[in-house]
Amino acid sequence: MDTVILSDWLVARLDRGDAEPVYRQLLRLLQQAILTSQLPPGTKLPSSRTLATDLGIARNTVLHVYDQLTAEGYVHSTTGSGTYVADTRPDRRAVNARKPAAPDHPREDAALPVDARVAPTFAEAVTHAPPVMVAAHPLRHTEARDLSARGRRLIREAGVSAKQWGAFMPGVPDVSEFPARTWSRLQAKLWKQANPELLTYAPGGGYRPLRRALSDYLRVARSVNCTPDQIIITTGIHQSIDLAVRLLTDVGDRAWVEEPCYWGVRSVLQSSGLTLAPIPVDDEGLNPREPDLRTPPRLALVTPSHQYPLGMVMSLARRRTLLEYARQHRVWIIEDDYDSEFRYGSRPLASLQGLDDAGSVIYVGSLGKMLFPGLRIGYMIAPEDLVDTFRTGIAELYREGQLMQQAVLTEFIMDGYLTSHVRRMRALYGERRQILIDAITARFGDTLPVMGDEAGLHFVLGLPLHANDRAVAAAAYDAGVIVRPLAGYYSGEMPSRRGMLLGYACVPNEKIGPAFDTLARVIENTVLRVSPHAA
Amino acid sequence: MDTVILSDWLVARLDRGDAEPVYRQLLRLLQQAILTSQLPPGTKLPSSRTLATDLGIARNTVLHVYDQLTAEGYVHSTTGSGTYVADTRPDRRAVNARKPAAPDHPREDAALPVDARVAPTFAEAVTHAPPVMVAAHPLRHTEARDLSARGRRLIREAGVSAKQWGAFMPGVPDVSEFPARTWSRLQAKLWKQANPELLTYAPGGGYRPLRRALSDYLRVARSVNCTPDQIIITTGIHQSIDLAVRLLTDVGDRAWVEEPCYWGVRSVLQSSGLTLAPIPVDDEGLNPREPDLRTPPRLALVTPSHQYPLGMVMSLARRRTLLEYARQHRVWIIEDDYDSEFRYGSRPLASLQGLDDAGSVIYVGSLGKMLFPGLRIGYMIAPEDLVDTFRTGIAELYREGQLMQQAVLTEFIMDGYLTSHVRRMRALYGERRQILIDAITARFGDTLPVMGDEAGLHFVLGLPLHANDRAVAAAAYDAGVIVRPLAGYYSGEMPSRRGMLLGYACVPNEKIGPAFDTLARVIENTVLRVSPHAA
Repeated sequence: MDTVILSDWLVARLDRGDAEPVYRQLLRLLQQAILTSQLPPGTKLPSSRTLATDLGIARNTVLHVYDQLTAEGYVHSTTGSGTYVADTRPDRRAVNARKPAAPDHPREDAALPVDARVAPTFAEAVTHAPPVMVAAHPLRHTEARDLSARGRRLIREAGVSAKQWGAFMPGVPDVSEFPARTWSRLQAKLWKQANPELLTYAPGGGYRPLRRALSDYLRVARSVNCTPDQIIITTGIHQSIDLAVRLLTDVGDRAWVEEPCYWGVRSVLQSSGLTLAPIPVDDEGLNPREPDLRTPPRLALVTPSHQYPLGMVMSLARRRTLLEYARQHRVWIIEDDYDSEFRYGSRPLASLQGLDDAGSVIYVGSLGKMLFPGLRIGYMIAPEDLVDTFRTGIAELYREGQLMQQAVLTEFIMDGYLTSHVRRMRALYGERRQILIDAITARFGDTLPVMGDEAGLHFVLGLPLHANDRAVAAAAYDAGVIVRPLAGYYSGEMPSRRGMLLGYACVPNEKIGPAFDTLARVIENTVLRVSPHAA
Repeated sequence: MDTVILSDWLVARLDRGDAEPVYRQLLRLLQQAILTSQLPPGTKLPSSRTLATDLGIARNTVLHVYDQLTAEGYVHSTTGSGTYVADTRPDRRAVNARKPAAPDHPREDAALPVDARVAPTFAEAVTHAPPVMVAAHPLRHTEARDLSARGRRLIREAGVSAKQWGAFMPGVPDVSEFPARTWSRLQAKLWKQANPELLTYAPGGGYRPLRRALSDYLRVARSVNCTPDQIIITTGIHQSIDLAVRLLTDVGDRAWVEEPCYWGVRSVLQSSGLTLAPIPVDDEGLNPREPDLRTPPRLALVTPSHQYPLGMVMSLARRRTLLEYARQHRVWIIEDDYDSEFRYGSRPLASLQGLDDAGSVIYVGSLGKMLFPGLRIGYMIAPEDLVDTFRTGIAELYREGQLMQQAVLTEFIMDGYLTSHVRRMRALYGERRQILIDAITARFGDTLPVMGDEAGLHFVLGLPLHANDRAVAAAAYDAGVIVRPLAGYYSGEMPSRRGMLLGYACVPNEKIGPAFDTLARVIENTVLRVSPHAA
């Protein structure tokens, strides 16, 4: 190709007024021309002096561009001989390796564009002046590429809410009440010490002083049985469960989940190839039926202190039966103890783990609801014989860090701030819970039952069996109130209950009434005025 | 059972001098007695007044204990009638549900212990005075319970190093050089503003201003093609890959990995059920053979800017072929661009993603090596049609947070500290690299080749083919020097190269020489004095 035509082509496209530096524009234009074979392999580029003069730019600029093109393999230069376009066209035989019995095509004619769909010929480009920006405006396939089957399922069944705040989002603490100044002060103190060991990867298990502090706290608060070494610091319940799944289960293994259960658990388990067996719950908690018991699972996930989302407590009899069953049939139990600090009117109950004498129970918890969700610090208590395995697994799979943050948290706990904050929040959330319960009673009497209200950051407002709780939630969302429909927590087809989770913890006292009024109107319009037969 | 015998039994076991409060001791002892059926179901407990008098403790203490036992279901009380031990024995029919054709046993005789192996009979306990602490010292099964097959594989093939710092750990930046004071100042400023939105869950994708700052930075530094919306903030490369795997692949799908490659990638992929196809690399990078090309994978993981661990750059021709192959056979490419900022002596090269016009490439990177590994902030650039999917996926699977930290990072970038820190580190690491190279040349001439030294935080010191690089690494570790053997990075059985990764970034200048002397002695003793035939 002619040097003059190239210069004309470039001059037509360089825009000195553009924010993009001339260097970059020139680089990009030459790259495109080479990629689209407008400058075919073997073409000799103009000397830097010539091109600089033709374009009216500094020779150094052209030299830099040529250097970069060389470094990236677009061109190669021989001293004294010039700069030539390299042959970097895709190897057709490799690309088409899969096609059966196609005649062997030698490398395409140098004059043809690599891919006729992508750019017009050079001749066309020159005569029809508008620049062809190939790399900048790629022609994208309009059809989205296929997700995998497990990807489609994950998205289809995703339970996460688009909005994460405000009446009546469940499971969210009131972060505006978090003692930010105290946290910041402790944080600044630790950063001042600038200990480089806190800036690098965490050893498997996490910051040892934090494990000690948590071990002490959990032994007293939750009656767990553990030493600091059994504590593994994670980023929260999702990661804790994921780690256990990867180490203790294989694809196709069966996992018992409560029906209903937290959607996040379902997603993590299914995404890892486990088969879920939803087990019904009654007022004593997990209640497996004969067929369930006859096929022992590899894993059972339970929320014995406060069933999520319905709120019942697993009775002592059921706990003992479950533990004995697990021991006999070698089932791993994951005890998800997600919000047991917030029990109103009675002491927190002892963990299932503390009752276990066979090393069947892996206890998991998180500090997010006690402090702030963005913190992403949780913990697992691993049975003693699994500690090394879990430490290796977590370092191998996730490369843990955040030691500085763990150190701040340790100080926060040791100085008593965790306990005092939790106590204060328990009182505040207790108030808000009462305001909401009173509003419900005033409006609906006992028409609509309230379930699981003795603990946690939410309770469930039951709806009649003919109600479509997803539709109610959608209508409420339109009206500006977030409620999570119970249907979203069921793994099976036919939820045995209808209702909505109402989170009150993150709602300022004075906003609870008005938000509830809005919700009540929605319920009245969508559910209570509709007869069971019409639904 | 007799009230007097119970009181005697308790008195023998309560230790007022113990650190553990009497309340807790009494609670624990009664729980144990009930669990082991030493206090069988139906037993009437002494009145609180009587027990308090017998034990010489406050009546209130006994009342509290009885309250807790009631709350937890160990006992039930009828007003005026007394407190009775509840029947919470495991349901034998449930526990044994799986056993075929066993005669139906009615609930066991109340006088027998639930499990004779766990505790002696009450009579024995009384006559042989020493306390039987059941729950506190559980009898654990001495055999570790089985990990799953994928769990065993993960642990067996774990590549993570026990020690994460010091000569010559690869991939670790010098965190003592991190501008901690600046970071702390920005952090304190943001915490002072105490914006509660920064303390809660991150919306899918992460903090928008950070996505904007990264998008600008990456477009310039790495020639990627993206808008801020295409950026997904993750906790690093492990999570980015995990997310892509869960959304785009199914169990059993094939994944191309470079041979050798980063062990973390291998672990994440295998743990998620993918079949790895290790593809050899030559001096132009990934070099698939005919059989590889005939079975297109679902996913291909590549490190085109700086092959990890060997360091070659993927040539432009190979890049174009790979992209064309991916487009034609609908292969997802994950471009892992892990340390491209640290290129010595030439500009960073353009990304593969910037060349892609078919939306095949998912670009992933991390800020850990630029700033500090404990930070755990990374990013993915998702093809446009996958953005929503990835955002939903990350929120569903991991519940992202750390918005405050993302906000600090944004300020750090916008104020120019990222760029200046990287520039400073590039110069420092360049010095260290040179010191180590000079030491190698002085000691070994060109007997042992150095590979991949033009970029990164490490290079590879090649060893003769007869060398056992794992053994060399072990001997070096014993001598106090960490090197990672190349063998650990190969997925297949027969590594085609021998050598060791030497990381120099985290080693103070003055320590490089001495550490290398130690290593050189180890090499001389274990490799160079041994003839190829003797090995």
